[in-house]
Amino acid sequence: MSSGSTPSANIANTLMLRAFTDERLPRPPVWLLRQAGRYLPEYRATRAKAGGFMDLCRSPSFCAEVLLQPLERYKLDAAIVFSDILTIPDAMGLGLSFGVGEGPKLAHPLQDEASIAALRVPDVSSLQYVFDAVAECKRALTQNGVQSVPLIGFSGSPFTLACYMVEGAGSQNDFATTRRMMLQRPDLLERVLAANEQIATDYLAQQAHAGANALMLFDSWGGVLSPAQYERFSLASMRRIIATLKARLPNVPIILFSKGAAHSFAAMAAAGADALHVDWQSDLSLARAAAGKQITLQGNFDPLLLTTDVETIQRTVGETFTSFDAKHRYIANLGHGITPDAKPELVAALVNAIRA
Amino acid sequence: MSSGSTPSANIANTLMLRAFTDERLPRPPVWLLRQAGRYLPEYRATRAKAGGFMDLCRSPSFCAEVLLQPLERYKLDAAIVFSDILTIPDAMGLGLSFGVGEGPKLAHPLQDEASIAALRVPDVSSLQYVFDAVAECKRALTQNGVQSVPLIGFSGSPFTLACYMVEGAGSQNDFATTRRMMLQRPDLLERVLAANEQIATDYLAQQAHAGANALMLFDSWGGVLSPAQYERFSLASMRRIIATLKARLPNVPIILFSKGAAHSFAAMAAAGADALHVDWQSDLSLARAAAGKQITLQGNFDPLLLTTDVETIQRTVGETFTSFDAKHRYIANLGHGITPDAKPELVAALVNAIRA
Repeated sequence: MSSGSTPSANIANTLMLRAFTDERLPRPPVWLLRQAGRYLPEYRATRAKAGGFMDLCRSPSFCAEVLLQPLERYKLDAAIVFSDILTIPDAMGLGLSFGVGEGPKLAHPLQDEASIAALRVPDVSSLQYVFDAVAECKRALTQNGVQSVPLIGFSGSPFTLACYMVEGAGSQNDFATTRRMMLQRPDLLERVLAANEQIATDYLAQQAHAGANALMLFDSWGGVLSPAQYERFSLASMRRIIATLKARLPNVPIILFSKGAAHSFAAMAAAGADALHVDWQSDLSLARAAAGKQITLQGNFDPLLLTTDVETIQRTVGETFTSFDAKHRYIANLGHGITPDAKPELVAALVNAIRA
Repeated sequence: MSSGSTPSANIANTLMLRAFTDERLPRPPVWLLRQAGRYLPEYRATRAKAGGFMDLCRSPSFCAEVLLQPLERYKLDAAIVFSDILTIPDAMGLGLSFGVGEGPKLAHPLQDEASIAALRVPDVSSLQYVFDAVAECKRALTQNGVQSVPLIGFSGSPFTLACYMVEGAGSQNDFATTRRMMLQRPDLLERVLAANEQIATDYLAQQAHAGANALMLFDSWGGVLSPAQYERFSLASMRRIIATLKARLPNVPIILFSKGAAHSFAAMAAAGADALHVDWQSDLSLARAAAGKQITLQGNFDPLLLTTDVETIQRTVGETFTSFDAKHRYIANLGHGITPDAKPELVAALVNAIRA
C-alpha cells in the first residue's frame, strides 16, 4: 500500500493532517514556506557544498540535509520537500540555469508556434531525482519507523510554469510576453498549459507514491490575470489536476495556492482541493467568508514580519487570531516564502507566538 | 464663479462629464491614462526640448504642448493635466530627482521618527506651477471661448505618496520599507499620511479652481495592502479628501483609482467618489457587481493590448462590451498607463474600436 493511501500512518505529529478534517485542534499547526532557505546560515553552508542551486535539488542527500535544518531550530509541524517548481521545464529540455545572484533562466523559451509545436511532455521518469529526494527526505524524517512530521510534495501550476516557459525567466512586467500570447494566440498558450497539466499530474502522483503525505500546487503568477482569465488559463487546469489526483489518491490532501487571486477564493474553494493557501495581501477572515467553512485555509502571515521585531510579531499574531478562528481547518504559515533577509530569531518568535 | 462649480460650461464635448450622470450615452467616452507619453515621437521631441522630466512638468507651455499631442492624433473625449504625482513630495523638500533611464528618487526619504517629526505641510502656493499648467492646458484646449474636451486634474493618494516618501524611490519588493513602518510604527506612517491628506486636498481644490473639470486620485500602491490595511492606511484618508472636496466643490466629479484593490470595490464605491477607475487585472462586470449601478466605472483595457495587433484589440473590445453595459456610467480607458513600447497605430485601433 502506498503512503498516499494512508498518509498519517506512523507519523508522530499529525496536527497538520488533522487540520484537513473537521476536528477542533488545541492549537494551529505551523510550517513556513521556504523554511529551508537562504536566511539560515546552515542552509547557505549546504548550498555552498552542493554547488549550484539545481545541484542541490538533484542531490537527495543534500535535499534531506536542508529539509531537517529548520526542524532542528523551530517547532514546526510539517516539512516540504526541498526542490523547485522549474524541475518540469528543465525536464522538458528548455535549458534551465540559475546565474549567480540572478533568478532562473530558460535557454529555449517557447515564444513561437514552432517551438510550442515541438514541445513534448517528458516521461515522468526524467524527474526520478525529485522522487528520490522525496524518499530521502522521508527517510531523514523517520526514526525507528516513525516519521516525525508530515512531508509535503509540490508542483508549479500549469499557468505558472507556462509563464516561465514562455517568458524564459522571471518578469518585472507581469509576464507581458506570456500575457501577450494569451491575448493574441490563446490556442498556443493552451497547448503549453495542456502539456504542463499532464506532466504536473503525474509528477504530483509520483511524489505521493514516493512518500509525500500532502501535495501543494503553487500558482505563483495566477494573480497577474483578471478573474475571467484566471478561470480559463489557470484554475481550469488545476481543477482537472486535482480531480485526477483525487481519483488516484483519495486520501492525500491537496493544497492550492494562487498568489494574488483573492478575487477567486470562492471558485478556488470549489475546485476540489482540501486547502487554500492565503497570501499576505489577503485577510484570513475575508478568505474564510469567501471560501466557506468546509475548506482548510493555510497562511497568511507577512514574510516582512520576519524583518521587524518580536513585539510586532506577537501583536500581529494576537490580532490575527482575534479576528479568525485558528483552531478549525487552519494551518499557520506565511503568505509567501521566507526572504533571505529574515532574521532566524524572528522566525522562532513567529513560530512561538503561533503556538502560544 | 470658479470653473469648479460649472464644470460643463462652454465645453464642446461633454460626453465624459455626462458619464458621471444616469444618462444613457450613444457610446462610451474614451481617454487613456498617460495618453501624452513616451510612446509618441512628438512627446519625446518636446521632452528633449524641455530637458529633464520635472523641467517639462514645471513649464506650463510645454505641459500644454504635450497635452494636445494625443488629441491631435486620436478622437479622445478628455485630457488630463500633464504633471506627476511626486510634485507634492518635491514641494515638501524631499529632494526629488529623475535619473536618466531611472525612476524617481527622493534624496531625503522619511525613514526615522526625527525626519517625520520635521515634515511640514507645504503651502499650496509652492505648487503654483501646477496650477499654472492647469490654466495653460485649459487655454490650449479652448478656442473662441469653447473648450474642446474636459480637463482632468489629479493627485497621488496619501498612501501612494507616503510609499515614495518613505521608500525614497519606486520598489521591487512591494514597498517593504513603508510596510515595515506600517507594521512596526503605524503611528509614524499615519503622521505622514495626515500631512499628505492635508496638502492633497488643497492641491486638488486649487486645480479645480485653476480650471480642471474633474479630479482624479491615483492610489497606485494601495494594492500592496491587505483589505484591512487598505481601509486603514489608504481608503480612510481618500474618503476624507473626497468629503472635503465635495463640500467645497460639489459639482466637480472625482475619480478614485486604487490599483490592485479589487477586493474593496464595494468600500470604494461608498467612499463618496463619482467614479472608480478599474485596473486591467479586474473584470468590469465583476467591478460593476461589487460597486453597484450608481457609480461610474472607468478603465480597464490592458495596456498590453497596445503591443499586440488590430484584430486582437477589436476582438477584446467586442468581448468586453458584450459582457458589460458600456453606455451607462462608464468611461473607456486603460487599466494602467500607456507603456513606452505601445504602438501609436494600435492606440488609434483601440480608440476606434471603443467608439465603433
